[in-house]
Amino acid sequence: MSDRLTIALDAMGGDAAPDIVVAGAERAREVYPDAGFLFFGRRAALEPLLAKRPTLAANAEIRHTDDVVSPDDRPSTAVRRGRKSSMGLALEAVRQGEAHAALSAGNTGALMAMAKVMLKTLPGIDRPALASFLPTYRGDSIMLDLGANVDCDSENLVQFAVMGAAFARTVLGLNTPSVGLLNIGEEELKGNDTIRRAAERLRRDDMAFDFAGFVEGDGIGQGQCDVVVTDGFTGNVALKTAEGTARLISRLLADAFRATLLAKLAYALAARSLGALKDHLDPNNHNGAVFLGLNGLVVKSHGGANAAGYAAAIGVAVDMARADLCRLIADDVARFKTKEGADTALQTQ
Amino acid sequence: MSDRLTIALDAMGGDAAPDIVVAGAERAREVYPDAGFLFFGRRAALEPLLAKRPTLAANAEIRHTDDVVSPDDRPSTAVRRGRKSSMGLALEAVRQGEAHAALSAGNTGALMAMAKVMLKTLPGIDRPALASFLPTYRGDSIMLDLGANVDCDSENLVQFAVMGAAFARTVLGLNTPSVGLLNIGEEELKGNDTIRRAAERLRRDDMAFDFAGFVEGDGIGQGQCDVVVTDGFTGNVALKTAEGTARLISRLLADAFRATLLAKLAYALAARSLGALKDHLDPNNHNGAVFLGLNGLVVKSHGGANAAGYAAAIGVAVDMARADLCRLIADDVARFKTKEGADTALQTQ
Repeated sequence: MSDRLTIALDAMGGDAAPDIVVAGAERAREVYPDAGFLFFGRRAALEPLLAKRPTLAANAEIRHTDDVVSPDDRPSTAVRRGRKSSMGLALEAVRQGEAHAALSAGNTGALMAMAKVMLKTLPGIDRPALASFLPTYRGDSIMLDLGANVDCDSENLVQFAVMGAAFARTVLGLNTPSVGLLNIGEEELKGNDTIRRAAERLRRDDMAFDFAGFVEGDGIGQGQCDVVVTDGFTGNVALKTAEGTARLISRLLADAFRATLLAKLAYALAARSLGALKDHLDPNNHNGAVFLGLNGLVVKSHGGANAAGYAAAIGVAVDMARADLCRLIADDVARFKTKEGADTALQTQ
Repeated sequence: MSDRLTIALDAMGGDAAPDIVVAGAERAREVYPDAGFLFFGRRAALEPLLAKRPTLAANAEIRHTDDVVSPDDRPSTAVRRGRKSSMGLALEAVRQGEAHAALSAGNTGALMAMAKVMLKTLPGIDRPALASFLPTYRGDSIMLDLGANVDCDSENLVQFAVMGAAFARTVLGLNTPSVGLLNIGEEELKGNDTIRRAAERLRRDDMAFDFAGFVEGDGIGQGQCDVVVTDGFTGNVALKTAEGTARLISRLLADAFRATLLAKLAYALAARSLGALKDHLDPNNHNGAVFLGLNGLVVKSHGGANAAGYAAAIGVAVDMARADLCRLIADDVARFKTKEGADTALQTQ
């Protein structure tokens, strides 16, 4: 691999592919001039889009394939038959070391399953996890796992904590991110055994993160910690409940501003201030879920992201690639286990 | 018990007890003139409050106790030592048949633990569940369990569904409420075995509810179904995440309306319309969590509820008592099991 960062793009994944993929890549190039792109997808669709963007085209290559993973494909189907699809080939480019990261806005389940099979987990990691950004009052937090693992044991949660902290250092630029375990009470006696055991193990002061203990659902939006760790079932429900609540309030707000003539006038007056609120919550500004714990970097964009959102997801890929996040995670996990092992050895002497 | 409805009130539970308790009871009397109250708590504090409200006082009785369960008491401590507390005596009044329902705004864990030990579960119910109202775009939905049971099996989830449906018929006035199982995907293959087994059993067309299949976190706020069933861990996280997201957006909105002079003016103009939105989300208008599945009716009010909120929780208690909800639940569960048993017998013939 050259010094230039190469990102492999599933050009056919997402609601408005390939247009948004190409437009997003062009935007990202403005911010990351050292990035180059491999576009996997239909040449006939991609060529005209690149022809209109000579600077991008000069740093891009089209790799043709007719195969596409559809939004309805089961993960198992994708694993069996999707290797030659635009998604599969983007992952293969990462596996071969031809690209530093792969990005897709397509079928999440298929992407996770194929990535896991093709890239394999890092040494020391039992299961990869899906991590994403969440808007909070203090700025963005990170939550994982968001659905890759329905059932998790305490070892999984500990590994998620270490991986999430490494990711936060890389993409949020924090030296010592705070990490909390999602629970149904802040007291140490609350929750189930799995969570309590994970908390016991994370309560050490020699790590590259601060363990903040338990965090409850209402602490997420307050930004009570930088990284929220939970199993994939709870994380997925929490993420979607937060999104659903935001959508509920947006609808009620829109109704309120349409209710009377005065309210309509008010909306016009407050449009700019309310725009800032909208920006704060806009998923495009928090785009780029990451599949952590694999031998290779894989980013998932919202299927409905616009060009700015897609560019933000490319930014996440670039940040992770620059920081060599896979090595960072493997090192951190190894260090955690070494320190824990040393403590155990001391205790049993 | 006379025909009059008697509600036992833990007059010392909640942030602003006993004032809010008495004020709430007075409000509730206006809506439910056939309700009478037993106030359990300190006579010296309660007498002056009732003296100012002669109509309420004529339908109320003070039962003095100095003992109070504090917000920090562990559930196990409350069970061992709280029997003579205002909370314990209110539950005892229900157990003795002296009151139709008990209501407390105090320590939730203590209330659940004491209620479970003192009132015992209904025949056919393995575990009681905490249910509450959630604001949605369509009006209120109900979710359970919200934290009474960290781990649940499919039998528990099936019982929660039947209990939640009976509760929805009683307090939401629906003939055939729709019931959904909270999951991380709407497809039948998603989720864990527990949820899939519960779904299989609930998929029958001869019940007093419509089984709506799986609902995801973002479907809650849309009001995708009337009753959302889940385990206590996930339910608690989902409820608090929704509350936290609503608080996040409220803070961002308040900031937006303070940002510029124009925005301040806009707020003044839209105040009435925005007030309707605020009302829609105000927890006081969705107050009254219920501990379902016990031999007796127990309602938990928000600790920070105002008089209107406390009155709403009394309303929930009255509605349940009038409908004889405990019998309804026991009947529905028995009917469910009979029908299921008949099917199994047919299949094995």
